[in-house]
Amino acid sequence: MSNPMTDYDRFLSKAALKSQGSAIRKMGVMAVRVPDMISFAPGYPDPEVYAWAEFREITAELLSGKDASVLQYGPTRGHKALVDACLEILASRGIAATSEELLVTTGSQQGIDLVGKVLLDPGDTVLVELPAYTGAISAFRNTGARLVGVKQDPAGIDLEDLDRVVATERAAGRTVRCLYLVPNFQNPTGLLLSLEKRRQLLVWAARADVLIVEDDPYGALYFEDTASVADTRPIKADDDEGRVIYLSSFSKTLAPGFRVAWMVAPEALASKLDLFKQTQDLMTPALDQHIVYEAYRRGILTSRLPMLRRFYQEKRTVMQTELRAQLGDLITWPEPKGGFFLWATLPARCSTDEMLPRAVEQRVIYVTGSAFFVDRSGGNILRLSFSLPSKEKIVEGVRRLTQVVREELADHRAPVEI
Amino acid sequence: MSNPMTDYDRFLSKAALKSQGSAIRKMGVMAVRVPDMISFAPGYPDPEVYAWAEFREITAELLSGKDASVLQYGPTRGHKALVDACLEILASRGIAATSEELLVTTGSQQGIDLVGKVLLDPGDTVLVELPAYTGAISAFRNTGARLVGVKQDPAGIDLEDLDRVVATERAAGRTVRCLYLVPNFQNPTGLLLSLEKRRQLLVWAARADVLIVEDDPYGALYFEDTASVADTRPIKADDDEGRVIYLSSFSKTLAPGFRVAWMVAPEALASKLDLFKQTQDLMTPALDQHIVYEAYRRGILTSRLPMLRRFYQEKRTVMQTELRAQLGDLITWPEPKGGFFLWATLPARCSTDEMLPRAVEQRVIYVTGSAFFVDRSGGNILRLSFSLPSKEKIVEGVRRLTQVVREELADHRAPVEI
Repeated sequence: MSNPMTDYDRFLSKAALKSQGSAIRKMGVMAVRVPDMISFAPGYPDPEVYAWAEFREITAELLSGKDASVLQYGPTRGHKALVDACLEILASRGIAATSEELLVTTGSQQGIDLVGKVLLDPGDTVLVELPAYTGAISAFRNTGARLVGVKQDPAGIDLEDLDRVVATERAAGRTVRCLYLVPNFQNPTGLLLSLEKRRQLLVWAARADVLIVEDDPYGALYFEDTASVADTRPIKADDDEGRVIYLSSFSKTLAPGFRVAWMVAPEALASKLDLFKQTQDLMTPALDQHIVYEAYRRGILTSRLPMLRRFYQEKRTVMQTELRAQLGDLITWPEPKGGFFLWATLPARCSTDEMLPRAVEQRVIYVTGSAFFVDRSGGNILRLSFSLPSKEKIVEGVRRLTQVVREELADHRAPVEI
Repeated sequence: MSNPMTDYDRFLSKAALKSQGSAIRKMGVMAVRVPDMISFAPGYPDPEVYAWAEFREITAELLSGKDASVLQYGPTRGHKALVDACLEILASRGIAATSEELLVTTGSQQGIDLVGKVLLDPGDTVLVELPAYTGAISAFRNTGARLVGVKQDPAGIDLEDLDRVVATERAAGRTVRCLYLVPNFQNPTGLLLSLEKRRQLLVWAARADVLIVEDDPYGALYFEDTASVADTRPIKADDDEGRVIYLSSFSKTLAPGFRVAWMVAPEALASKLDLFKQTQDLMTPALDQHIVYEAYRRGILTSRLPMLRRFYQEKRTVMQTELRAQLGDLITWPEPKGGFFLWATLPARCSTDEMLPRAVEQRVIYVTGSAFFVDRSGGNILRLSFSLPSKEKIVEGVRRLTQVVREELADHRAPVEI
């Protein structure tokens, strides 16, 4: 008789049986192992611009022992002062919200996961962009939901396709409760959803009777040479009816290691999200919440934003310039007007999945486009993050990538018949 | 026509529709609002014994900026050095584990939630103790699972009842995949599971082909006047077959505000737990993990344990002495040999639920026993936490509680006929 404890499948939930790893996380792990690797893979902010000295000063004060709440259990909704700070930040983005509608979350990833738990049953349809953020894809997949992609054009999501997809799903008897999207400098495309489409989406949501899940981690990091704060106005700012759940984060502007983010939802949904957050981690870590709050209160967050915008804009420009110089018209991309990502398309005969071992050999890495498409398209696309590597590394990395692409194309141009 | 956005029920998942708040969290909120309240409700550690000075020193060094990983995204499984530290701690408890079996979690609450997601489908049966930790009850309920209680006696879970319950569930065609229990100084009863029963449980689990989920947040806090480290030996330490998922935490020994805990599971399960953790929060906050690791590496955690054991033991003794002096044989409890909780039974005619408003009026608060019973029994029981209040507050709180109980009993002895 075989050992009953070598195969655990009989103990697994349906979702666990089906679950698969995230491509981005795998790339990250791979990149770490190779010496002198230049990684365009993970969308990490650059620790060069973290406010280390300020965090040091704040934390020394917080850990004086005067305020026990800094290391104690606390409210699931979040440290009260930070909740109020998030409401102020929301107000500055045109969103009027109350503390009953707000939750501090352990990264926006938790917010997305909670949305999945609260809105989706197995078999329900959730709409996502083609392509979409892989962390959202995984979170929604783990609920047992069916993910259906909606096309994008250079101005963002395609509203005609949206109508078509909803009609198809409903005609097949499926429940469609929400659309998830990243309107500002989308991960992975870097696209900025047009203001006109934002307005149309609210009309569409009311007509289709669905909720919009608006994920906005990058909105504050617009590039002033091509975008303005007005272009990033959240859909939620004009949500008079209560159709939009809005998520944002301190991960890209302060540091991701704190895992402090927030979400705002109509009160009836916020109270349910709260209950599911309670069972997930009771609360977001207290020290991190206090540090982030102090960084806000002391003006550290706000005063550094113009510097951060210039910093990442310059990196983007270096990457664009070098890609154009090295690869010319072999590669195309929509110019990133903010955020961390450049979404690059190669000639159709290039498979970025198949090209990956060659890239690793050349010590440069990216995320393959197909990882972001729920319909598995995007085979000749790659996502290049310009946020973490230095300008020098970006230049050198693009040179290595050029070598990879040219070798790949040479192979495909002249296949050897054996 | 009514406003379609005043009722959100049509957007909610089945689990969200059914979800309810935790009694303990509600008590916590209530207690904060009343001035001069003495709270025996939440099981918080006492910030008096946090290593504030050491945390301050560690954090100042960590935030020097030399090691960017302190504030960066990192591996979902946890900061490598902390993973290794957890393996050392496990080894000291008799558990041989590998890094492939280990996950750092955002509090043990996350570990419990992940277990639910990976092992349970809606309608599956999960076995829990009567009574059981409310955070586990809520997490399992949110998966749509059916919670079935198993009786306890003074030595812990009742193995005959366990057999009976499994037989009944399976006869009804239900899937029983796991038993969740807290063997050391259980929340809420304070009970210590006997070593004999621990051995029997492993035999039972193999015979019944189920997994054991062993939650051990309090094991290091045994009271040396009534227990020894040998009494707390984890079930997992003798799990040759791979039947046990073991969870433990730094929340009670360092501080809960860090939200740093860990779990160990057979590799095939650990890889699934990892995937679900990825979608929940990507990783446990980096700074917290680094602080906890440094507190371990510098010997701060280990060297302080004897002091912590004495500290909480003294509080328990004060509570026991005062309860005996004030309430005599009106109240009974099993002596806590460790942990944070005293599980007190009043005369059967006393409803601790109905008594609660009177207690709030007297500015003392507890958690009602019924909150911990999935079969809603325990109506004359209350959970008293002695961990957070000072000895003076414990004495005063017990006096207030005595007043409450005596008034309640007087009412029940002489009901007024109208």
